[in-house]
Amino acid sequence: MQKLVYLAVAYGLSTAAPALAQQAEKVDQAMIAKIKDEGLNRSQVMKTAFYLTDVSGPRLAGSEGLKRAHEWTQKQMAQWGLVNSKIDPWGTFGRGWDIEKSYVAMTAPYYHNMIGAPKAWTPGTNGAIKKQIVLVKATTEADLDKYKGQLRDKIVLTEVASEPKTTFAADAKRYTDEELLKMAAPAEARPARQGNDDAMAAYRARLALRTKMAELFMQEGAAAVLSTRGGSHGTFFTSNGAPYAADAKPVLPEIEMAPEDQLRLIRLVEAGIPVEVEMDTKTKFQTQDLRGYNVIAEIPGTDKKLKNEVVMLGAHIDSWHAATGATDNAAGCAVMMEAVRILKAVDAKPRRTIRIALWGEEEQGLHGSRNYVKNNFGDPATMKLLPAHEKLAGYFNLDNGSGKIRGIYAQGNEGVQPIFTEWLKPFADMGATTVTPRNTGGTDHLAFDAVGLPGFQFIQDGLDYNTRTHHTNQDTYERLQADDLKQASVIVASFVYNAAMRDQKLPRKALPQAPQPKS
Amino acid sequence: MQKLVYLAVAYGLSTAAPALAQQAEKVDQAMIAKIKDEGLNRSQVMKTAFYLTDVSGPRLAGSEGLKRAHEWTQKQMAQWGLVNSKIDPWGTFGRGWDIEKSYVAMTAPYYHNMIGAPKAWTPGTNGAIKKQIVLVKATTEADLDKYKGQLRDKIVLTEVASEPKTTFAADAKRYTDEELLKMAAPAEARPARQGNDDAMAAYRARLALRTKMAELFMQEGAAAVLSTRGGSHGTFFTSNGAPYAADAKPVLPEIEMAPEDQLRLIRLVEAGIPVEVEMDTKTKFQTQDLRGYNVIAEIPGTDKKLKNEVVMLGAHIDSWHAATGATDNAAGCAVMMEAVRILKAVDAKPRRTIRIALWGEEEQGLHGSRNYVKNNFGDPATMKLLPAHEKLAGYFNLDNGSGKIRGIYAQGNEGVQPIFTEWLKPFADMGATTVTPRNTGGTDHLAFDAVGLPGFQFIQDGLDYNTRTHHTNQDTYERLQADDLKQASVIVASFVYNAAMRDQKLPRKALPQAPQPKS
Repeated sequence: MQKLVYLAVAYGLSTAAPALAQQAEKVDQAMIAKIKDEGLNRSQVMKTAFYLTDVSGPRLAGSEGLKRAHEWTQKQMAQWGLVNSKIDPWGTFGRGWDIEKSYVAMTAPYYHNMIGAPKAWTPGTNGAIKKQIVLVKATTEADLDKYKGQLRDKIVLTEVASEPKTTFAADAKRYTDEELLKMAAPAEARPARQGNDDAMAAYRARLALRTKMAELFMQEGAAAVLSTRGGSHGTFFTSNGAPYAADAKPVLPEIEMAPEDQLRLIRLVEAGIPVEVEMDTKTKFQTQDLRGYNVIAEIPGTDKKLKNEVVMLGAHIDSWHAATGATDNAAGCAVMMEAVRILKAVDAKPRRTIRIALWGEEEQGLHGSRNYVKNNFGDPATMKLLPAHEKLAGYFNLDNGSGKIRGIYAQGNEGVQPIFTEWLKPFADMGATTVTPRNTGGTDHLAFDAVGLPGFQFIQDGLDYNTRTHHTNQDTYERLQADDLKQASVIVASFVYNAAMRDQKLPRKALPQAPQPKS
Repeated sequence: MQKLVYLAVAYGLSTAAPALAQQAEKVDQAMIAKIKDEGLNRSQVMKTAFYLTDVSGPRLAGSEGLKRAHEWTQKQMAQWGLVNSKIDPWGTFGRGWDIEKSYVAMTAPYYHNMIGAPKAWTPGTNGAIKKQIVLVKATTEADLDKYKGQLRDKIVLTEVASEPKTTFAADAKRYTDEELLKMAAPAEARPARQGNDDAMAAYRARLALRTKMAELFMQEGAAAVLSTRGGSHGTFFTSNGAPYAADAKPVLPEIEMAPEDQLRLIRLVEAGIPVEVEMDTKTKFQTQDLRGYNVIAEIPGTDKKLKNEVVMLGAHIDSWHAATGATDNAAGCAVMMEAVRILKAVDAKPRRTIRIALWGEEEQGLHGSRNYVKNNFGDPATMKLLPAHEKLAGYFNLDNGSGKIRGIYAQGNEGVQPIFTEWLKPFADMGATTVTPRNTGGTDHLAFDAVGLPGFQFIQDGLDYNTRTHHTNQDTYERLQADDLKQASVIVASFVYNAAMRDQKLPRKALPQAPQPKS
């Protein structure tokens, strides 16, 4: 799940009460029973997740790990009998990047191996370096002046914004009935967005300061940078924003650190105790192939009239680099792949074509899905639509970690609410009951929503997504909850099957207007 | 806090209802008020903790870090005006050991830096090595046979007994009123100790198997061992049992690993995927000085008749090696040091002499305190007592992490219960109210108890001691709770002052019998 777009899309929908009584939605209960049997009793979702995580490794956009995952998923889906299975370029992304060595330790006043990883798309140290460190503290650009002339050949230490706290609340939680009930209601109107605007302004200011700092460190000839974005107990968060463009300006080697290790260095420096750090990092850029890719495969439709229509399901296959992206988002990919595997295994004959997409480069701005939509359905900038736009019955996305499905976001589409309510009924005893009219953001269904296509994301139990896994070095296979993923797989398979079988495509919202050109 | 003795001492006391009405215990309320004012408003406990943790570093028995801590504490207490401040050898411990480099990474099928640290007292790899790995799975000695001939020049991977689980309970907690009330009652009798006996037998069997495995790995010429004792999210536990004796048999280089990293290697190997690991560890043994030490300092008594009597307070200053031993037990040392600092700052003139001891080598079996008691008070093996035995008014210990004091264990001493109840009254509004008749074990007050001296450990809120800090790589300064340590400091200072002022020494239990020689 991508992070920067949170603020922009987190506004709930405030429209009033829903839809008229509609004709009863037909659900093929026998098929749902088969899907449940296959998905709950002969699941392969954890095996798929293992190949996506442990075997492929970290799957940063453009990395060798992502390439391994592309190749394995494409082949695996072909083996399951899907057709048109391909690794599908969507356009130019930027440079590939992999870590080939990562080592950072305090070597004075005593030895201490530290926990950290090179920041994505930063260079390595070109061999081991041992340097004194300098702590840079700045809240404004003017604060930086005093460091001029102080940084040459030093390792620069930046401050820790968020210190680890002892946790008296559980890392992981599930939605309570009360919380789900509240979600089922339309979001309260938010007349004053001042808070968000302020937060966005503060965020932009921090970003601008960080850019200035990076320029200073480079100009002054610092050797490297140690920084941290938070975490605790050996968990650290990795960040977006590093330059992946082929023509990006050079940056210094930089390691994102476990806060405890960064804080120890800071406390020692502030007490006037000389500190020396050793770094030995090696990273590899590849620039032969700057394209980004999605992995696509299909179960062909069987109805003469409807087989040219498509139901899509998807999740992003790329991840951050400090772990194996298990909950963000091997989980979603494994569930989506398992859903199509189940449909093949039960020999479903969908009327419409079912197409799975494992999106690339989501973490850098939903690039894979946005460009796929632009290339195939229409451009949200102009709202010029392509012929296939008319043929998409619906898109289903999963990208909120490993938690089981508790319902679905109708994304402001009143027409789908009674349909999804009916589709969820067979899963009430598995905890999935809620259809919320609200929007949710941060991931690939937005690409479809942006051109007026019915794209939806499921509601999932949060588990430890926000505390321990999302964009951290601890987003590993251990964090996957097998029972949750099985449940999600059968629900997704059912939704996709239902969408492929119903007489009509899913209802759509009114088409968005193309943005006005700026004067 | 030491670990191996848990099972042996965890039995509660089952004697019936307590003590007769006694003469009212005098408490100098004006002095308590001064102690609170100094300890709560001008605390130095976190500064002391900083020097013990970040500045000294890990303080494994015999290490350079422990030596730094010895020197700093001895000097600091002398600067505060304590007398007879000394680094006091207690006898022969064994070899010193420090980590000079620690690096372990998976280098195939792709690169992944792993979290781990050399097991204490293991040798290094003598430069970087890159090796294939072999997973050894054994529940009985016979299971080991199939690995003969398979291990030469390989890095051996042992199994993970305790896999990380997603935590739906908080890492940290405090005692509830209900729990404290239950503790205040005598422990329920435990007629059947079968469970504990079984656990002990199983523990011994695992230990024996582990010894056999280590022998096999060595005989077969394995290159190194990767093992894990549990933990999660980048937290890993370090273990006792490595040989520190100067004449210990050689062992292989061994790294204790974060379970997630160990499990990834295991899953890959079990899936038939070739895995290569790079290790580069360097450890340093020192054998020039095999002695162990305690740090001792005193506030001299002022009462002509009583100044030859002594009230002691203490905590162990050694730690495990993968972190800075913040909660185990820089916290206890910082509180004890702060207690004597407070008493000096308020110019307390204790009738009896107050003596602080920062014990060495606790983690390997309470060596520092046991030998101090044996050298100064008496030998529990013979119950031959030395003259000073009669002069000890009481001993107070703190070694259950960073949590505030909620009360005290009377350790089966009925006579002290009404006294401690009275002494706690000024701290009721700070959460310390409970006197339990029960025993607690695992740390240095046992050394005193073993020769019939009144030695006590306080009840502390557990916080995240068992989940995150006790014997882990994450027992760092961040885990210290300043407010809790301040509270503990003023309570300890008060208890020690009260014990130094009262007319009588603290009541004692009946002397233990010397163990019968085995026939």
